[in-house]
Amino acid sequence: MTETTDQHPKKLWGGRFAESTAPLVEQFNASVGFDRRLYEQDIRGSLAHVEMLGAAGILTGEEVAQIGAGLQDILSDIRAGAFEWRLDREDIHLNVEAALRDRIGPVAGKLHTARSRNDQVAVDFRLFTKEAALELADLTRALRAVMVSEAEKHLNSAGGTPVILPGYTHLQVAQPILLSHWFLAYAEMLARDEGRFRDAALRMDESPLGSSALAGTPWPIDRHAVAAALGFARPTANSLDGVGSRDFALEFLSACAILMAHLSRLSEETVLYSTFEFGFLTLPDSHTTGSSIMPQKKNPDVSELARGKAGRVFGNLMGLLTVVKGTPLAYNKDLQEDKEGVFDSFDTCAIVLKLYAEMLPKSVWNSETTLKAAGRGYSTATDLADHLARSGVPFREAHEVVGGLVGVASRSGRQLWELGDDEMRGAHPLLSAEIARSLTVESSVEGRQSYGGTSPVRVREAVAAAKEALRP
Amino acid sequence: MTETTDQHPKKLWGGRFAESTAPLVEQFNASVGFDRRLYEQDIRGSLAHVEMLGAAGILTGEEVAQIGAGLQDILSDIRAGAFEWRLDREDIHLNVEAALRDRIGPVAGKLHTARSRNDQVAVDFRLFTKEAALELADLTRALRAVMVSEAEKHLNSAGGTPVILPGYTHLQVAQPILLSHWFLAYAEMLARDEGRFRDAALRMDESPLGSSALAGTPWPIDRHAVAAALGFARPTANSLDGVGSRDFALEFLSACAILMAHLSRLSEETVLYSTFEFGFLTLPDSHTTGSSIMPQKKNPDVSELARGKAGRVFGNLMGLLTVVKGTPLAYNKDLQEDKEGVFDSFDTCAIVLKLYAEMLPKSVWNSETTLKAAGRGYSTATDLADHLARSGVPFREAHEVVGGLVGVASRSGRQLWELGDDEMRGAHPLLSAEIARSLTVESSVEGRQSYGGTSPVRVREAVAAAKEALRP
Amino acid sequence: MTETTDQHPKKLWGGRFAESTAPLVEQFNASVGFDRRLYEQDIRGSLAHVEMLGAAGILTGEEVAQIGAGLQDILSDIRAGAFEWRLDREDIHLNVEAALRDRIGPVAGKLHTARSRNDQVAVDFRLFTKEAALELADLTRALRAVMVSEAEKHLNSAGGTPVILPGYTHLQVAQPILLSHWFLAYAEMLARDEGRFRDAALRMDESPLGSSALAGTPWPIDRHAVAAALGFARPTANSLDGVGSRDFALEFLSACAILMAHLSRLSEETVLYSTFEFGFLTLPDSHTTGSSIMPQKKNPDVSELARGKAGRVFGNLMGLLTVVKGTPLAYNKDLQEDKEGVFDSFDTCAIVLKLYAEMLPKSVWNSETTLKAAGRGYSTATDLADHLARSGVPFREAHEVVGGLVGVASRSGRQLWELGDDEMRGAHPLLSAEIARSLTVESSVEGRQSYGGTSPVRVREAVAAAKEALRP
Amino acid sequence: MTETTDQHPKKLWGGRFAESTAPLVEQFNASVGFDRRLYEQDIRGSLAHVEMLGAAGILTGEEVAQIGAGLQDILSDIRAGAFEWRLDREDIHLNVEAALRDRIGPVAGKLHTARSRNDQVAVDFRLFTKEAALELADLTRALRAVMVSEAEKHLNSAGGTPVILPGYTHLQVAQPILLSHWFLAYAEMLARDEGRFRDAALRMDESPLGSSALAGTPWPIDRHAVAAALGFARPTANSLDGVGSRDFALEFLSACAILMAHLSRLSEETVLYSTFEFGFLTLPDSHTTGSSIMPQKKNPDVSELARGKAGRVFGNLMGLLTVVKGTPLAYNKDLQEDKEGVFDSFDTCAIVLKLYAEMLPKSVWNSETTLKAAGRGYSTATDLADHLARSGVPFREAHEVVGGLVGVASRSGRQLWELGDDEMRGAHPLLSAEIARSLTVESSVEGRQSYGGTSPVRVREAVAAAKEALRP
Repeated sequence: MTETTDQHPKKLWGGRFAESTAPLVEQFNASVGFDRRLYEQDIRGSLAHVEMLGAAGILTGEEVAQIGAGLQDILSDIRAGAFEWRLDREDIHLNVEAALRDRIGPVAGKLHTARSRNDQVAVDFRLFTKEAALELADLTRALRAVMVSEAEKHLNSAGGTPVILPGYTHLQVAQPILLSHWFLAYAEMLARDEGRFRDAALRMDESPLGSSALAGTPWPIDRHAVAAALGFARPTANSLDGVGSRDFALEFLSACAILMAHLSRLSEETVLYSTFEFGFLTLPDSHTTGSSIMPQKKNPDVSELARGKAGRVFGNLMGLLTVVKGTPLAYNKDLQEDKEGVFDSFDTCAIVLKLYAEMLPKSVWNSETTLKAAGRGYSTATDLADHLARSGVPFREAHEVVGGLVGVASRSGRQLWELGDDEMRGAHPLLSAEIARSLTVESSVEGRQSYGGTSPVRVREAVAAAKEALRP
Repeated sequence: MTETTDQHPKKLWGGRFAESTAPLVEQFNASVGFDRRLYEQDIRGSLAHVEMLGAAGILTGEEVAQIGAGLQDILSDIRAGAFEWRLDREDIHLNVEAALRDRIGPVAGKLHTARSRNDQVAVDFRLFTKEAALELADLTRALRAVMVSEAEKHLNSAGGTPVILPGYTHLQVAQPILLSHWFLAYAEMLARDEGRFRDAALRMDESPLGSSALAGTPWPIDRHAVAAALGFARPTANSLDGVGSRDFALEFLSACAILMAHLSRLSEETVLYSTFEFGFLTLPDSHTTGSSIMPQKKNPDVSELARGKAGRVFGNLMGLLTVVKGTPLAYNKDLQEDKEGVFDSFDTCAIVLKLYAEMLPKSVWNSETTLKAAGRGYSTATDLADHLARSGVPFREAHEVVGGLVGVASRSGRQLWELGDDEMRGAHPLLSAEIARSLTVESSVEGRQSYGGTSPVRVREAVAAAKEALRP
Repeated sequence: MTETTDQHPKKLWGGRFAESTAPLVEQFNASVGFDRRLYEQDIRGSLAHVEMLGAAGILTGEEVAQIGAGLQDILSDIRAGAFEWRLDREDIHLNVEAALRDRIGPVAGKLHTARSRNDQVAVDFRLFTKEAALELADLTRALRAVMVSEAEKHLNSAGGTPVILPGYTHLQVAQPILLSHWFLAYAEMLARDEGRFRDAALRMDESPLGSSALAGTPWPIDRHAVAAALGFARPTANSLDGVGSRDFALEFLSACAILMAHLSRLSEETVLYSTFEFGFLTLPDSHTTGSSIMPQKKNPDVSELARGKAGRVFGNLMGLLTVVKGTPLAYNKDLQEDKEGVFDSFDTCAIVLKLYAEMLPKSVWNSETTLKAAGRGYSTATDLADHLARSGVPFREAHEVVGGLVGVASRSGRQLWELGDDEMRGAHPLLSAEIARSLTVESSVEGRQSYGGTSPVRVREAVAAAKEALRP
Repeated sequence: MTETTDQHPKKLWGGRFAESTAPLVEQFNASVGFDRRLYEQDIRGSLAHVEMLGAAGILTGEEVAQIGAGLQDILSDIRAGAFEWRLDREDIHLNVEAALRDRIGPVAGKLHTARSRNDQVAVDFRLFTKEAALELADLTRALRAVMVSEAEKHLNSAGGTPVILPGYTHLQVAQPILLSHWFLAYAEMLARDEGRFRDAALRMDESPLGSSALAGTPWPIDRHAVAAALGFARPTANSLDGVGSRDFALEFLSACAILMAHLSRLSEETVLYSTFEFGFLTLPDSHTTGSSIMPQKKNPDVSELARGKAGRVFGNLMGLLTVVKGTPLAYNKDLQEDKEGVFDSFDTCAIVLKLYAEMLPKSVWNSETTLKAAGRGYSTATDLADHLARSGVPFREAHEVVGGLVGVASRSGRQLWELGDDEMRGAHPLLSAEIARSLTVESSVEGRQSYGGTSPVRVREAVAAAKEALRP
């Protein structure tokens, strides 16, 4: 950042001030260090505004042309990295406007007709946030497509059979599931995340420009035209609300926080599954890192960092909720604090979504290990209870019978299918060693054919449906 | 709460356990102290489940009838406050099931066929949260209707003219506005809040019942039928997701938090406006309280407490985000922490919405005071700058000229309209004392006719549009 | 809770009110539902106050005796569960005072001389929070003692040797450590947690009583005497601060949140180590639970729920920070929101600390499994690099050499100690198969003798020092 | 930031990696963008480490000299802005070490003997956080000194009498207080804030260096010497804790959050008191700003922004709590997220403290306005009730009598002192018009002589005590 500060800068709003701004205040108040990220939105907004001023006869065609050319010129310079940002010019708006005056002279002063920085920053920030929401919706959808594609891929492992994973509750092996089923669970979460971003974008799709400082303006402006030019569905209906509300940013941050909660769960599982102890997953070298001291280490940094970054996104939401809490209408300077958290949450969500979309297809699932693990922990005990229940034993009684058998097997270090005929019959007359032997992982998975269940037939249908839903 | 605990309670899941649960663990784990609030949802879910089991031929008609009657019986008892809740029976689900067994015998054990507590609690909690979201949507709409009705009322004060309020930015008087315009700003915020609740309700409108523990079930159940019977749009499509996801609760809590951010702003303004110093608003005795020591006090407790209660609702959101962060799929006991925050946020939002709907129509706006205040602080200075700009002076130059005049007036303790001809002309040749005298609060308000602006003509249109939008 | 409400209750502060409080306001404002938990503190405070009023000659001896006896009477009734709490009497203070009037007549009205509910609730709540902080300090210390005792116990496993655990970074096996070392790490964290609670208790050890509503009182009271009688170190030095500040509660909540962050880490490790995949830890049946559907399940509920409960404690902190944010001095009704979060955080921390103190000594570490796991993942590779470095090879070069050897071993599925002489010498001339064979887990642990390191000699010293520090 | 990235950078830890790091991973993982702020701490730590390695005979004197000179050289370059930071070198540590190798050759590789990045970053970050805590303690103390000095100044206004301010509860005028008393209330809060920072600094005053990766090191290092050289009180006692704990950062962030809660209250009051409606306070032009559209505006931006910045500091605390929650020991990459929030909170607190220390002494209190306001709202009603109570009327009865009189006065638009003899006597035989007339603001303030009260005699003592406490 190239920043210069005049000795005694003349503030654009300084008419009635007898003393110049204290240096520390200047540093504290200035937002150009971060809000210049809005330069595209700011200049786009100004161009739409000045066009409308021309169409409404408030500015002459020549004035519009001069201002428009000057703004385009500034935009090119900024894009080229050739624009000098000045802290003493406070923010993106005054930097652009002052640069415009430097380039085209006093006519630049006409650009600010019928608007205020209050509605200007509101429109810039809405444009950014709406576009950010739509981009995260797209990236969320892209990761969801990866989930579905991985789900499809793992329906057929080396042997042509689906990869089986232990399903966990309480992180204890519960019942065997398909790896594809696990991928589809995340696809479901991401579909709702996408929905939240799109709903947020729809709800904030209103242009506040023309609200002016807070009360509207006496100039005969056309807010609908400006809104349309900027791609908004409509103008905001109340000027106080237009400049003073930030629920659109809060809703965006909430959607980001919920998404990161989901991604932190995925990260936890990725970290777990790539431990030596689980051994289910081999992450690609390209997406892991080593240790400066332990030569053998291969660390799941991406997943850990993604999990940790849930913290900053939650913190950004908490931060802006705090900012808004208890502030009176309409605009207060507190609201300047709205942007950094939105920028940071957007960047964080975007890179984490991209990284998972890269990393998952390059990761290798060790299907023998997962299959073996899926058989541990008496994971088919429920099937045995269900077997009894299907013979008319109340489920609660069946549960108790099987619980006892698990205790027997557990205390002697055996699996359920290793129990003898006498042990089985002793537990319940309807049981036998043969029944015990039928309790395989594969048959367990096969059986769960209820809608949404993990049976291959259901998962194949679910993959097909998910692909259909993702069709453009 | 009437709670009893057996000496050596037999847990429904205790088959394989050699040692009984430690008393402190029992106390720690038990959720019946709060989740029994879900009794309506729980029994409704069980009834739908058992009906479906019957229709699917899994239970006999007689079994269905017995279980159904038993459940209805329990429901009546709970409603009548005649049900004995037992801590040693852990949660709402086991309390109901054990009571059922007490009443109808072992056949009660068949109710739990093809389901698990994991999908049972998920369906109970979704039913509650969906209904809570819809109820808050309705209450938000009701308060919005009050805002619109107050806006309409204050278009005609005693003298038949609209009540004028100072509009603030930075809590400094900025420009005069209509009180009705202020009410409509909150109506806008509430409309979006309502939208968030309705979107959340739509997104969570899926029945997880039938997901069973995590993987689905081998029983030939009909999840679509159960979903329909419970009023859900459809069943969840993935069983892991069905039992393990809580983003529906997070989205609900986010909507609550944003709503409370809005209501905390309304509260701040209500507190401010009813101070001696502002003196704009007289709250009704019925909605204020006194002091135990200062006999003269009349305190805006409702608004203060509502403002403070934003804290608990924000905290509930942060709490559940923390809970979900970094947990692996599918169900973990951590998720038991999901309910209290949702209950508390629902109750808090509901009562605050109701209180404002009661209090605002009974509050009196002191229109003479607000009118006088609206004229303070050179609130029409922008109109003077706009006047100059309309004569072709670039707005920036006009702003500077007027800033100087404000300085002159301010230093001599006068209003702008009290400036003399020489002072005005000295500042700019296009100005005069006559122009100064025209800068009234009423003409300022009248002028702001841009769409969404505070001019009476616009506000009348906005009221009409808002009423139209609220039409059932 | 037995609650009754008069039809038209007369408020103690109602002198100037023309209209009675709306029922919904009564419900909203009333805090007796939760603040009656402060009854011991409230009555203790009143007794100290009335004694002082007597000593100062403000009340007669007889008045003091009457009021004192009445308060004791009420205290007994409350303890016995025989006190009728009334919602229409708002809070703990007015409930007690009104009951006093019911029992001893108008002289009860003299109790409130020279005080206000503002300083009364401040003193009650400080007493509670100080005692809560000290109790959590004690409970934290007790769990720390368990950690030290477990550390000592596991210095000698069956074979008389210390139990070895894999040490993790990034949840990848990094280097072998002693299980005792792991316990001592938590002992260190808990020691700092204890320090935070004790510091907080010291800082809040000031009596606000006598601050009255906000400005002090004209009565000739003796605040130092009251402070001493209540066990406070001194009175608060400024009356506005005394009634209006809640940083003592925020500091308490912060200490709770940090403690829960630590306990959530312990919980995560407990959950992980008791999975089938890790298999390090067997939790006692008394502190685990089963599943309503999967008969084989044994779930680490205590640890999961403890981990999840970090959420509510974090949320309570965020909630109160939000409440305090932006409120003017001195007392505002918002502050009524201070208590529930403190109560809840105290209860949560206390039960989790107690549960771990119960559960850990009953848990069994499977030392063969942990030893085997500690050898996985080339966990002694750093020792090999250190060996080379000790021979003068720059550590960075040594790291690279060993990294290459790990690659060789890993690709061929061998351990480092299985590498041949040619492979070792090929990697670096200073290496040999003999050196490879010396890289055992035991020698690795033995070697780390730097202060604070995991070598048995250091850990024995650390246990001794920790025991010394815990000596009463 | 000048950053360059090689095409195929060779990672210092890359020995065993077959594939190079993906560009997006490099960008995601790299922390040098923010952790280079720790360069002073990092190089100071390395210098202490290398000196110790020399003293312990691990490195030769010449090696120590070479490495030391190289590090000093790098330090000078960084300070001069002449150091090339490289993203592909990940973090501050590897940037410095690689630069060292570039400058002094392979001997640079010996610097990392007996340490790891895990303990290196832990020591850097502790040094920073400890120094930050001490600096904020000093700045807090400096602002406290300003509060005390302002308190002293306003004991003597123009007329030689103390400035009187309305004291508020519920933002309703409650009782008159001294402005000095108000300043001292903040001095009290700041004194506790300072204490929290100093306690935190003491508790974190331990050097983790020598903990190495997690388990300590076999090298014969002297951790006590390194700790002493770096100004730490002692080394950490457990290596796992040394590299894996971040409660020191959480405690620092908590202290920052509580401080900002206090400063947000000060900010709220500053904003309020400088409104037209209150009119108590005139902020200096140097610390206020104007509007781009409303020429008359003078906005309390510093206070508003300070109030808003409570949000980011609360958010930073929430963020790190979330990061730590549920992570296993010892180091996880998640912890890389610990720094930005600490840097940001430090910077925020520091600038806000400095700004208030600048602004308050330049602000002007309008003592006539505050005096007039202090008389509003029947602020001396409590004095009248106290008067009655002193004559033996139970306070509750006195409260009710006065409440009635306030009603009478209020309904007829009079002050208490304007009530007639018959009205007074009618309310209670012990009252009279003469008593009413004595109820002045000045006598009210004068009377509150209890310790900590607002009477000038008490406040003068309090100022003296506060000055004494601030004596160096």
